[in-house]
Amino acid sequence: MNYELKNIPVRTTKPRTEGFTMAMDKGLSPRQVEDFMSSCSDYVDIVKLGWSTSYVTKNLREKLDIYKEAGVPVYFGGTLFEAFIVRGQFDDYRAVLDKYGLEFAEVSDGSISLNHDKKCEYISQLAKQVTVLSEVGSKDAAKIIPPYKWIEQMQSELDAGAWKVIGEAREGGNVGLFRDSGEVRQGLVEEILTQIPGDKIIWEAPIKSQQVWFVKLLGANVNLGNISPSEIIPLETVRLGLRGDTFDMYLEDIKL
Amino acid sequence: MNYELKNIPVRTTKPRTEGFTMAMDKGLSPRQVEDFMSSCSDYVDIVKLGWSTSYVTKNLREKLDIYKEAGVPVYFGGTLFEAFIVRGQFDDYRAVLDKYGLEFAEVSDGSISLNHDKKCEYISQLAKQVTVLSEVGSKDAAKIIPPYKWIEQMQSELDAGAWKVIGEAREGGNVGLFRDSGEVRQGLVEEILTQIPGDKIIWEAPIKSQQVWFVKLLGANVNLGNISPSEIIPLETVRLGLRGDTFDMYLEDIKL
Amino acid sequence: MNYELKNIPVRTTKPRTEGFTMAMDKGLSPRQVEDFMSSCSDYVDIVKLGWSTSYVTKNLREKLDIYKEAGVPVYFGGTLFEAFIVRGQFDDYRAVLDKYGLEFAEVSDGSISLNHDKKCEYISQLAKQVTVLSEVGSKDAAKIIPPYKWIEQMQSELDAGAWKVIGEAREGGNVGLFRDSGEVRQGLVEEILTQIPGDKIIWEAPIKSQQVWFVKLLGANVNLGNISPSEIIPLETVRLGLRGDTFDMYLEDIKL
Repeated sequence: MNYELKNIPVRTTKPRTEGFTMAMDKGLSPRQVEDFMSSCSDYVDIVKLGWSTSYVTKNLREKLDIYKEAGVPVYFGGTLFEAFIVRGQFDDYRAVLDKYGLEFAEVSDGSISLNHDKKCEYISQLAKQVTVLSEVGSKDAAKIIPPYKWIEQMQSELDAGAWKVIGEAREGGNVGLFRDSGEVRQGLVEEILTQIPGDKIIWEAPIKSQQVWFVKLLGANVNLGNISPSEIIPLETVRLGLRGDTFDMYLEDIKL
Repeated sequence: MNYELKNIPVRTTKPRTEGFTMAMDKGLSPRQVEDFMSSCSDYVDIVKLGWSTSYVTKNLREKLDIYKEAGVPVYFGGTLFEAFIVRGQFDDYRAVLDKYGLEFAEVSDGSISLNHDKKCEYISQLAKQVTVLSEVGSKDAAKIIPPYKWIEQMQSELDAGAWKVIGEAREGGNVGLFRDSGEVRQGLVEEILTQIPGDKIIWEAPIKSQQVWFVKLLGANVNLGNISPSEIIPLETVRLGLRGDTFDMYLEDIKL
Repeated sequence: MNYELKNIPVRTTKPRTEGFTMAMDKGLSPRQVEDFMSSCSDYVDIVKLGWSTSYVTKNLREKLDIYKEAGVPVYFGGTLFEAFIVRGQFDDYRAVLDKYGLEFAEVSDGSISLNHDKKCEYISQLAKQVTVLSEVGSKDAAKIIPPYKWIEQMQSELDAGAWKVIGEAREGGNVGLFRDSGEVRQGLVEEILTQIPGDKIIWEAPIKSQQVWFVKLLGANVNLGNISPSEIIPLETVRLGLRGDTFDMYLEDIKL
């Protein structure tokens, strides 16, 4: 850090399994990736090329190389996996992962209907090739999955070989873990945490109020995802109790 | 594209008259323009320097040169035309277009009251100098223009020499074609399309839900405008059915 | 300016005491700062590194050097001052200002409870070291300070040695001067202005409708703050009556 402040919580450092931040790149140019990494590589544990943006992204290899040089792994959003699956192109998908030398992949069913056993099979198969992140939750605001099902699915996906499970929120933070308004489904999150260890979950939380809510509940080293590149530095300050929203979190033993 | 996916709709390629994307630059620096073009020049058909931002933009010529080298034409927002007209400086405006070597110009009356015959005269005159885009719709949310008038104005502006007509939405997507809330005036759009060919219209649609609505109604190759530079790649995925919102559009003949 | 338009209000030029724009940098990379300054250095009078972002910002010195070369002073957000104060590290804070060669500092109590006499003491002490901006208003939306208290505090902080006082709004524009919805507390602003000279106040106004409201009330050369780097050029056009929102402001003596 640039100077000394007392009573700052200990942040995990890379390689992190807790206090993990997943950023979403939805179409940065190579030089924008350089800028992003120059300021944020210490704080970003993994980058998702959002949904299927990798399909249309120019200079994709160049971008991947820049992330690689910065020591930040990259994966393609789950919607891309689904786009291949729905077209019966699973083998092609695996070939794409190889072609680009990816070490992570996401398995999700946010836009397709996928028998859950089948989803777990995909996880198992891909887990032989890459580290698998699996995602639970629909991108359709109308499809409400009850908490016990979130838990069942998360557990069976971890059992099938997923490294971590992701709670769905989209770029907008308005589905899955959240209501249309962006408000956290608090009961859902708390019930999940009675059964699934917090360090196995990445909570998608693109909106500041959502990040604040999770940091207040689970502390500086909660795993958060779908963070916009321009919000990585702000998120670090929220984690550390250095923004108004979490300012009081670590000050119990200090007197003014 | 970076890899092969089946059942992807055919996108038009440059130079496009359909499937046209107009991006809005509201003050990028020259290097930011380079970044933008390096990732998006294939997907951007024309760039608008929003409203009168060209008046205060530093390094304007340098920016125009970068866009030119990328093969993307640029025009100054209609509000600038209006700023000259309201001051009785039409000849000065024409001189500015020449000074900067612009090949496109926009004629609008979103902020001024302009007799419609007079507007069409401006279109005719400018059409001798540049390719004219004309815009219909007020920037004042309180001024509701009934559908038959949109159609009359669009038709007479095309007759006067406009290359395409633009449906007003502003940067915020909350006037003209849209309600305050950003919701599409669906009846208006559908009525316009009964009389004016879709390829002659550019729909300003800065918000994702608006883009999705138009793609669902008119397909991958609808003309859209006022797209933020950071939303160009996301919009391509919406057009191609590769984002959750339009994921099912082109999958009729595929079985899971 | 790039071309001549009649009836454009006279904008103050640097160094400004009126018509002052304070931008908020919440984590730009060095090259992003270069981009920002290349397009906006004429229009930005001072840059705030938002709240405590300077603590986690990589390449902080490099950033400060780029701003310095562009002739734009920088200060650390008031929340950082508060983070030092609440930890009893005021001397450390002063040392940090020295270490980074800062010429401005902000004194605020948006996140802590601070006896107002004590706050004024801090202002007086710091005013011997740097130029002090002091901020009035809470970051807590539930803490409503009545207008007479805003005035008392602003006056006593100016008396204590603050160069200017800042009206709080946060990055979101939803506290202090504004309601949750972002709507201006108009009565508050107008009452403040009966007692405190407008040129001594910087109004935080991150949202366009807020900027428009202040420009309409106080003219092109109102002091505004918490402006996002991407909104600096747009704000200049709002000030000059060259965006739809303020288009009519300076046209009284012109006939269409």
